Amino acid sequence: MVLSSGLPFDDFRALLANLPGPDDGAAEAVRAREATLTKPAGSLGRLEAIAEWLAAWTGRPPAVTRPLVAVFAGNHGVTNKGVSPFPASVTAQMVENFAAGGAAINQICIAHDLGLKVFDMALDMPTGDITEEAALDERSCAATMAFGMEAIAGGTDLLCIGEMGIGNTTIAAAICHGLYGGEAADWVGPGTGADEAGVARKTDAVARAVALHGAHLKDPLEVLRRLGGREIAAMAGAILAARVERIPVIIDGYVSTSAAAVLHAANPAALDHCLIGHVSAEPGHRRLVERLGMEPLLDLGMRLGEGTGAALAAGIVKAAAQCHSGMATFEQAGISGKDG
Amino acid sequence: MVLSSGLPFDDFRALLANLPGPDDGAAEAVRAREATLTKPAGSLGRLEAIAEWLAAWTGRPPAVTRPLVAVFAGNHGVTNKGVSPFPASVTAQMVENFAAGGAAINQICIAHDLGLKVFDMALDMPTGDITEEAALDERSCAATMAFGMEAIAGGTDLLCIGEMGIGNTTIAAAICHGLYGGEAADWVGPGTGADEAGVARKTDAVARAVALHGAHLKDPLEVLRRLGGREIAAMAGAILAARVERIPVIIDGYVSTSAAAVLHAANPAALDHCLIGHVSAEPGHRRLVERLGMEPLLDLGMRLGEGTGAALAAGIVKAAAQCHSGMATFEQAGISGKDG
Repeated sequence: MVLSSGLPFDDFRALLANLPGPDDGAAEAVRAREATLTKPAGSLGRLEAIAEWLAAWTGRPPAVTRPLVAVFAGNHGVTNKGVSPFPASVTAQMVENFAAGGAAINQICIAHDLGLKVFDMALDMPTGDITEEAALDERSCAATMAFGMEAIAGGTDLLCIGEMGIGNTTIAAAICHGLYGGEAADWVGPGTGADEAGVARKTDAVARAVALHGAHLKDPLEVLRRLGGREIAAMAGAILAARVERIPVIIDGYVSTSAAAVLHAANPAALDHCLIGHVSAEPGHRRLVERLGMEPLLDLGMRLGEGTGAALAAGIVKAAAQCHSGMATFEQAGISGKDG
Repeated sequence: MVLSSGLPFDDFRALLANLPGPDDGAAEAVRAREATLTKPAGSLGRLEAIAEWLAAWTGRPPAVTRPLVAVFAGNHGVTNKGVSPFPASVTAQMVENFAAGGAAINQICIAHDLGLKVFDMALDMPTGDITEEAALDERSCAATMAFGMEAIAGGTDLLCIGEMGIGNTTIAAAICHGLYGGEAADWVGPGTGADEAGVARKTDAVARAVALHGAHLKDPLEVLRRLGGREIAAMAGAILAARVERIPVIIDGYVSTSAAAVLHAANPAALDHCLIGHVSAEPGHRRLVERLGMEPLLDLGMRLGEGTGAALAAGIVKAAAQCHSGMATFEQAGISGKDG
C-alpha cells in the first residue's frame, strides 16, 4: 500500500469505511453441498459453519492449503513500570527461540503442518511509556500497520495472528479500557504470572494511561497509537490486509484480540472474516470476546500468546474444510436418506 | 484373551476389579520437565495436563506416533420401534462409505494423520429389541467385548473410540437411564434428527426397556448385555484392553461414552486413562459427562458419531505431546527467567 499525501491514518480510515463483504454465492454453494453429504443434517455443528465461513471470505470452495501463523514481536516502554515479572529482554530472546524452533508455537505448527513467520518489530526501540506519553506518533503507527499489511503478501489461505511482547497484556488491557471503559481492573490479569503486587502495578498503569489519553480515545486509531504498540499495530494491519485480500483469519488470545478490537471499534463488520481461535485464561479475554460478540473455538485454559491458540484452532479449521470438500454425497455413496 | 471356564463375564469382572494404575514416575518426570520449558508456568493450560496424562498411562515421555481411530458398527432390534428417521440398512451402507473413504471420519483422519479401522459387528444379526428382551445373551456379550479387546492388538499409542449404528442413541439413553435412573426423557434427544413424535417413540422405548429389565440393572455388565448392543460391548472391551495395554483413549460422543459409563459403573477408576474428546449436541451427553465428572476437550455442537469428535480432539492431544517433547528449555534457549 502506498501511503497518500494526507494524514498518515487517512488511508486506513478509508479502508475501514469500505471493507469488502462476504461472497454470498460461495457461501450458498457450501450450504447446498452440505445438505447432500453423508451425515445427518447439521451433525458436524460448528465445522459446517466454518466451511461456509471459509467459502464466504475466500470466494471459493473451502480449502486450506497454505495456512500461515504470523507472529509479531514488539517491546513496550511501560515495562519500566514493573508490569511484567519477566525483563523486556525476553522478547528478543523468545524471537531467537522461534527462529531456532524451540517455542510452543513451533511445535503446534509441526503438529498441524502450518507455516510460521516471525516479524521482529524494532525490538531495540520500545514504544513510549503509555502512562507518560503516546506509544507511537501517527506516522510510526501508520507505517507499522502498513508493515503488518505487507507481512502476509507472501500468500496464505488461512492466517493465524499471534504476538510476543513482554508487557503487552498491560497494553491489551489499556486498549480495552480505552475502547470500552469500565474499571481498569476489569481488564487486567496476571498475564505471564504477575503476583498480586504486580497486578496492582498493571492496574495502576492502565488506569493512569487511560486517564492521560482520555480526551483522545473516541477515535479507535488514536487508541491504537496512544495505548498500543508495534506488534499491536502490525496485527491490526495484517487483519485488515487479509480482509482486502480475501484471506480468512484466526485471532489468538487477549493481546491479538485487542488489536482486532481496534478495527471492530472503527467498523463493527471489520472482523467478519475472523474467528477467535481460543479463549484465554487471562480473564480480560473472555470479557473482550463477549464485547465483540464472537465465540472462540477452543477453551483450554491457555494463556501463552505466540499464536498458539490460533494455531491449535487451525487444526479444527483444516478438518472442517477437509470434511466439506472430501465427503461423499448420499447419492455417490448409495445411502438411503432420512425416512427412506 | 482366553475366556475361562466360568461364567462368560467372570474374566471381565476380574479385570475390572484389578485395573492397572498410572505410572506416577512418568507423570512426575513430565511435571519436572514442564517447569523448564520456554513459557510462563502453566501457560499451556490443558495441553500440559494432557502431556502428563499421556505419560502417566503409557509409562513413557509423551508421544503420539501411531494414533488410531477404531469405529465399531452394530445394528439394533429396537429400530423396529421407529426410534430413528433412518432405516437400519444405513448402518451397513455407512460402513461401505467408511471403506470407500467418503465419510466425515475419513476426512478428519486425513486432516490429522490418524489411522482408521472399522469393525463390522454382525450387521445382519441385529441385537434383541431391548423393549421386549435382552439385547444379547451373556456369552455373546462377553465374546463381543473380547472381540473389541482384540481389535486394538495391531498397536497404537492413542486410541480414538467411535461407532456407527442406526438406533444407537436410543441404546445409549437406555444404558444411561439404566445406570443412573432419573426419567427416560432426561436421556433422550433427537439423535440423527428425530422429530417430536420420533423423540416420543424413543422415550417410550427407553422407559419400557428399563422397566422390563429393571430387576437386573444393579450389575453394570447386565446393563450392557440387556440394554446395549454389539458396538457398545466392543467399545467397552476396547477401552478395557487399552487400559491393560497402557494405551490412552479418547472417547467420542454420547454412544461411545455410554459404553465407557458401563465400565465406570463397575469401577470408578476405569476411565482414568480416557479423555472425552468433545461434548455432543445430543443433550444426554452433557448430562452423562457430568455424571462421569469428566471435562470434554471440545464443544463444537457436533453430533455425528463415527469417532469424529474424538478424532478432532486427537489433533489437540498430538499438539500437546509435541509441545512437551519438542520445546526448548530456558537453559537451552538462553532465556532470562521470571523476575530475572
